Amino acid sequence: MIANHNLTVYNSLTRQKEIFIPRHEGHVGMYVCGPTVYNDVHLGNCRTFMSFDMIFRYLRYLGYKVRYVRNITDVGHLLDDGEDRMSKGARLDNLEPMEVAHKYTVGFHDMMQIFNVLSPSIEPRATGHILEQIEMVQEIIKNGYGYEKNGSVYFDTVKFAEKTGEYGKLSGRVIDELWAESRDNLKNQDEKNHPSDFAIWMKASDEHIMKWNSPWSVGFPGWHLECSAMSTKYLGKEFDIHGGGNDLKFPHHENEIAQNVGACGCQPAKYWLHTNMLLMNGKKMSKSDGNTISPVELFTGDSVHVSKGYSPMVVRFFSLQSHYRSTNDLTDEALQAAEKGFKRLMEAHKSLQSLTSTSVSTGDLDLKVDENISGIFADMDDDFNTPRALAKIFDLVTIINSQKDGQISIQEITNQTLEKIKLTFKAIIFDIFGLKDESESNAGPVDGLMQLIIDLRQQARENKDWPTSDKIRDSLNEINIQIKDGKEGTNWSYK
Amino acid sequence: MIANHNLTVYNSLTRQKEIFIPRHEGHVGMYVCGPTVYNDVHLGNCRTFMSFDMIFRYLRYLGYKVRYVRNITDVGHLLDDGEDRMSKGARLDNLEPMEVAHKYTVGFHDMMQIFNVLSPSIEPRATGHILEQIEMVQEIIKNGYGYEKNGSVYFDTVKFAEKTGEYGKLSGRVIDELWAESRDNLKNQDEKNHPSDFAIWMKASDEHIMKWNSPWSVGFPGWHLECSAMSTKYLGKEFDIHGGGNDLKFPHHENEIAQNVGACGCQPAKYWLHTNMLLMNGKKMSKSDGNTISPVELFTGDSVHVSKGYSPMVVRFFSLQSHYRSTNDLTDEALQAAEKGFKRLMEAHKSLQSLTSTSVSTGDLDLKVDENISGIFADMDDDFNTPRALAKIFDLVTIINSQKDGQISIQEITNQTLEKIKLTFKAIIFDIFGLKDESESNAGPVDGLMQLIIDLRQQARENKDWPTSDKIRDSLNEINIQIKDGKEGTNWSYK
Repeated sequence: MIANHNLTVYNSLTRQKEIFIPRHEGHVGMYVCGPTVYNDVHLGNCRTFMSFDMIFRYLRYLGYKVRYVRNITDVGHLLDDGEDRMSKGARLDNLEPMEVAHKYTVGFHDMMQIFNVLSPSIEPRATGHILEQIEMVQEIIKNGYGYEKNGSVYFDTVKFAEKTGEYGKLSGRVIDELWAESRDNLKNQDEKNHPSDFAIWMKASDEHIMKWNSPWSVGFPGWHLECSAMSTKYLGKEFDIHGGGNDLKFPHHENEIAQNVGACGCQPAKYWLHTNMLLMNGKKMSKSDGNTISPVELFTGDSVHVSKGYSPMVVRFFSLQSHYRSTNDLTDEALQAAEKGFKRLMEAHKSLQSLTSTSVSTGDLDLKVDENISGIFADMDDDFNTPRALAKIFDLVTIINSQKDGQISIQEITNQTLEKIKLTFKAIIFDIFGLKDESESNAGPVDGLMQLIIDLRQQARENKDWPTSDKIRDSLNEINIQIKDGKEGTNWSYK
Repeated sequence: MIANHNLTVYNSLTRQKEIFIPRHEGHVGMYVCGPTVYNDVHLGNCRTFMSFDMIFRYLRYLGYKVRYVRNITDVGHLLDDGEDRMSKGARLDNLEPMEVAHKYTVGFHDMMQIFNVLSPSIEPRATGHILEQIEMVQEIIKNGYGYEKNGSVYFDTVKFAEKTGEYGKLSGRVIDELWAESRDNLKNQDEKNHPSDFAIWMKASDEHIMKWNSPWSVGFPGWHLECSAMSTKYLGKEFDIHGGGNDLKFPHHENEIAQNVGACGCQPAKYWLHTNMLLMNGKKMSKSDGNTISPVELFTGDSVHVSKGYSPMVVRFFSLQSHYRSTNDLTDEALQAAEKGFKRLMEAHKSLQSLTSTSVSTGDLDLKVDENISGIFADMDDDFNTPRALAKIFDLVTIINSQKDGQISIQEITNQTLEKIKLTFKAIIFDIFGLKDESESNAGPVDGLMQLIIDLRQQARENKDWPTSDKIRDSLNEINIQIKDGKEGTNWSYK
């Protein structure tokens, strides 16, 4: 464990920042609600997964051995019309539900790789834990918090609230107010003892494709149950962090807690962390009113909402510019600014590698850098405050650029300080923020090399050195690159 | 469906080539035994998955809608010492078994991507189908082919053989000879009625980590059971193709058939396809005597068995040079030859794009090409004979090269014939064989561009044009490329 760190996290359950003390020293168990794989992952979810990736990376940086569990919801959950989302997707695509699930799981993994999001330690699937879910329903019934009606089993929120006082603790809702907000308040309403009760096992209709045998009916688990069962299985009844998007706080996480307490008699997670919403142009993203953009549209610029495409790392940088608990407003202007900022950061990182340093300290620059670096980690320790840490990183960028331009003539950077800046850049920007220099990928050198070649050809033409100019064109032709002279200079493209 | 195709496949079950007629017109259900994810995937398995990838691709090319199910064995199976392989891996790595499984699943997916192996339609996990496996055990017991002893359940091979006559049909083994070959012949021998009986549910010891509740004990499924349960779930009781490595024929596939017939009363697959072994230097690969090489060692050349590294596509090309039912002998010489062949093929493909053609046929070249192309597809229709098809592809390469060199001066290729060759190359080489031109990736142009730049710099130096020579060095420096002049010319590298 790295000394001198005092990580605090905002706990949604207690509504305050708390010092982070894991249940088992040196180890962290973290569960994050993963994607429902009946559709392409949307950008808001990507923000959530990038945020928890940053948290995962920071915890590992601090020296914790982290078991990070992020599930795949491949069984889907009830819609208002009583349909399982997965089987709805299946009918549309004319596929078997697990084929749909597999297709979108692969797509999700690809997108996470594009965003440089690390794979979690375990990625359990809901359909892969039906047995565990059935057993949890049995426990809940045994403990008096579940009742069966016509092959379905419901969680008795009223009894649970009375006995434990726990219901509504996370979301701050009062049980009597829940009627209007209950997701399945129309479906099977007559079967429930109270509107706030929720299904933990649903009897399937004949048409329902995804269903399993159970002691109550051929059916499927309620949509909150999988996370309770899988977090318990892989992290134990009590673990450290449970995360997810703000929109899952109620009813999903509230009901998860009820299920865990109802089955195991204890609060599952010590700290509940929630990411805030991704907005676009100040409003909630929504397909129905067209205020939405997919990750791919964002990369290609193929959308009315952006003037151009933005690279995955610009989007990740943009995401880090907001605190994970703040809303993040995606606008074209903000993305343009993020692109500039990210480029400036990567350029500073390159400059950093060739800065000269001295062995003798001649001023207070060392002190300034030390304070800055301490500040960066203090920001990260303060509930992962990436925007504040980023601002301080840019103070370092200013120092690097002044040094590079020779503006700091008196106070040369000492060897030691330069080394510290290098280590901090590596740790924060690459290891923790998970950014990567996209120009370092193979596309980068090609652009640079082509620029050099075009310059050399231009020079040869000016000198009327036609053999060289022809050699260049022919050599490029051989490797399937064509160049085109236009009014505004020479362009190149692959054939 | 493409007309004029008459696909035949060698069916291991009947020991003969048969015309392929799927159970449901236009659709193919194919199940292939996937990897056990307690270790890095080894090269022999890669050969099997590349072979079935080629088969998957060819079936799709023929117009079939293929549901290709390839499982992930994440529960492991019994070793002689009675240990579950997965939990053994877990102890070594000091990880939770599912963490081990996840790590190696990710590694397996990465390797499949490197080899350009398509993702199957569904990739079910053994641990994700415990319920289905328990239900299958129940069916087998109900049908009289299973018996319980001390919490474990065994398949009654003697009774099954007597009643159905099916046992040993695939592998050709006689039940009385099976004593010595039974995998778990020492473990729990006293519990079994007959040495050839095998476990379908195992009671777990206290130390066993991966275990589930069942009607018989807290335990885990026998290692043959998952494939029976998952193929039935996703492809139905009767489907078209079951594939896997030759080494799985007995006991795994034999026992799978017994389980399926025992539970469902019918043969699961109409066609059983088996890939043959990958040898090295004429011998079976074996870790214990050092006669082994991993995919990564093969790519990097970091092994005593190869003189250099070979790219993934060279390895895939090499694999296609043997029929899937023949052994494939990996030697350094054979890989060098494959590298040359693959390069020649890719160069011919490039040349093909710039060949000129005529509108008037002036000879029998059209006929020759037509016959050749028909022959290629006839080879593929003949139990996927890739080496023969490849040989005919190289006849086309010869035609392309002669045409390119102007050797075919009289018989120019007609537009139509050229188009046919292009379509055949695309279909066979890229779509069906799953090869890709690695020089077309970003690494390719960099090498070519650097060669051109080094030439231009050399020329500038010869002309004593120092400003140009310096400009080149500085520009490369800016994009983090350094050049080094040595006795044997100029080298370059990334800084």
